[in-house]
Amino acid sequence: MSTADHINSSTPETAPKVGRAVQLALEQGAQNIDLSKLPNLTDMSPETITDNVHAINSLCDNPRQKFVFEKLVSHLHDFARDVSLTTDEWMTAIQFLTQVGQICSKTRQEFILLSDALGLSALVDSMNHPVPKGSGATEATVLGPFFTEDAADLQHGDSIASEGKGDYMYCEGRVLGTDGKPVANCTIETWETDDDGLYDTQYEGREAPDCRGRFKTDENGYYSYRLIKPTPYPIPFDGPVGKLLKSLGRHVFRPAHLHMMFIADGYETLITALYFKGDPYLNSDAVFGVKTSLIVDTELVTDDARARQLGFKHGPYSYLNKDYVLLTKDQAEEAKRASLANYYKSIQQ
Amino acid sequence: MSTADHINSSTPETAPKVGRAVQLALEQGAQNIDLSKLPNLTDMSPETITDNVHAINSLCDNPRQKFVFEKLVSHLHDFARDVSLTTDEWMTAIQFLTQVGQICSKTRQEFILLSDALGLSALVDSMNHPVPKGSGATEATVLGPFFTEDAADLQHGDSIASEGKGDYMYCEGRVLGTDGKPVANCTIETWETDDDGLYDTQYEGREAPDCRGRFKTDENGYYSYRLIKPTPYPIPFDGPVGKLLKSLGRHVFRPAHLHMMFIADGYETLITALYFKGDPYLNSDAVFGVKTSLIVDTELVTDDARARQLGFKHGPYSYLNKDYVLLTKDQAEEAKRASLANYYKSIQQ
Repeated sequence: MSTADHINSSTPETAPKVGRAVQLALEQGAQNIDLSKLPNLTDMSPETITDNVHAINSLCDNPRQKFVFEKLVSHLHDFARDVSLTTDEWMTAIQFLTQVGQICSKTRQEFILLSDALGLSALVDSMNHPVPKGSGATEATVLGPFFTEDAADLQHGDSIASEGKGDYMYCEGRVLGTDGKPVANCTIETWETDDDGLYDTQYEGREAPDCRGRFKTDENGYYSYRLIKPTPYPIPFDGPVGKLLKSLGRHVFRPAHLHMMFIADGYETLITALYFKGDPYLNSDAVFGVKTSLIVDTELVTDDARARQLGFKHGPYSYLNKDYVLLTKDQAEEAKRASLANYYKSIQQ
Repeated sequence: MSTADHINSSTPETAPKVGRAVQLALEQGAQNIDLSKLPNLTDMSPETITDNVHAINSLCDNPRQKFVFEKLVSHLHDFARDVSLTTDEWMTAIQFLTQVGQICSKTRQEFILLSDALGLSALVDSMNHPVPKGSGATEATVLGPFFTEDAADLQHGDSIASEGKGDYMYCEGRVLGTDGKPVANCTIETWETDDDGLYDTQYEGREAPDCRGRFKTDENGYYSYRLIKPTPYPIPFDGPVGKLLKSLGRHVFRPAHLHMMFIADGYETLITALYFKGDPYLNSDAVFGVKTSLIVDTELVTDDARARQLGFKHGPYSYLNKDYVLLTKDQAEEAKRASLANYYKSIQQ
């Protein structure tokens, strides 16, 4: 059907003029659809709206998108019906989501924070990164909103944190496959907050990355670097998500943690973090990220000479020896299939 | 529990230092929660995350908010599980929602547009504004994102549209209760697009309202005004929601319509719109707003003298005589109760 047919279908003399606005839109790339093939969407009621949104969305020629939107619309509508959502509540939600979007910037991702606070990030992460039982592979956890791609490339033993950011710490260990073989040339991205609980990106006028770095494992899978001992800190609580958590009676703290990402050829990229024994927020992480297998303990080394040898200005420092075990891409795919099968079995019971 | 107790709970020597970051946050107003009363949220899996988010959200002391968030989190998580949401899809959604928020401005509300396109606005509207059968009350429909509060106060017979914006139209009629009695001193807000399919707010550098106006009914409930005959137009399709509709294979057009809002003491505020017979988009409104009871027909008046008498520069003009029937606040509340009861009956069958 041509554009002309489309906008000039026979109508009574008094019908609205289908003119400039539609013509302009079609010229600017708006889709021209054969109207005769569309379902009738008039007189929508709470009982009929959902099936009709499905009907019009079923025009989508991407089967995955069609499936995802059918479930999305069903759950969205069921939610609104389940709670008899009022117009005022709907408007509150519109305004809230708008604020979440507007506070986002190059260095702040409030929608990830919202997803974190609602447990969606932890759910998506755990669905997509299951670890096969007995494999010994390191568990994944949430990425969080503070990863950046501009960390400096550093050498073994270098420090990711500038002087005065917090208490000294030294990490070393190996990156291995589940077969115990070293993963050489593995890229390790690592990032953390300083003692004020802030990532470098949260400071105005940030000029260079700090408290983050990028390393490569050597031929033995070995890595080593200096950092500061993480401390618990609040997620950004001056924005809409912080206000939401307050209204829910929740605190905004995360236990101390050190973010780590491992990227190596043939291996599934591992995004994880370490948590620390004795942290008061381990059990109530505001973003549901803690896994007990990721809780480590450090050793306090008071030997000043050893501290200086490693590059610190003085002792003491916290020491951690930690190996990480990566899944191959094939192992990760297989684990994901098995995990989904298990989940579907569990909900059918 | 004092702040000091809160952050100095007994931990081994190697535990993270709960220090400056937490202290700063508490000083800046972050909530101080008794950690001993919180559920243990470690080791979240697809099977356990939902109940645990409910557990922590149940701290909320607002029963309505607690209920709404329990349903919200359940549906959000069920959606993610139902579709086995991938990390890439999750990130696409995060980026999409961020774009929706970022394009919002004082004069553009893309989240309302998203709600409209997903049928949520029509659902919320129909749940909250049912019309009792046989009452003769005018049906409501979606507000849309283009209402502003700065329309000029106009007198009977004035035009809401400046010259050259479109074809002339004249509307008159009465605003009544379901008892047939006039609603005097009723505020009527009315707004529409011009022939280019744009509301005044969509033009850069808008200095004064156009194609919108505010009237009052007289003691007989009578109103009259000049306007332009609406034409079909696209919803804004240069943003993320327009792109979404394109990817779903949907068109972005709304049938021609004239927005109306009625505000009167003792009556339920009515937000509605008129649609026009013969419009090719009546059956496939991009935002699911059309109700057949709101479709009207106009009469083409070619009498030049009559046109000039009404204030037009020339003929012809479209003429519409249309009465509106408002529910009292009590009638509206009762209708809402009955509608919800009906809905719950229908889903239990």
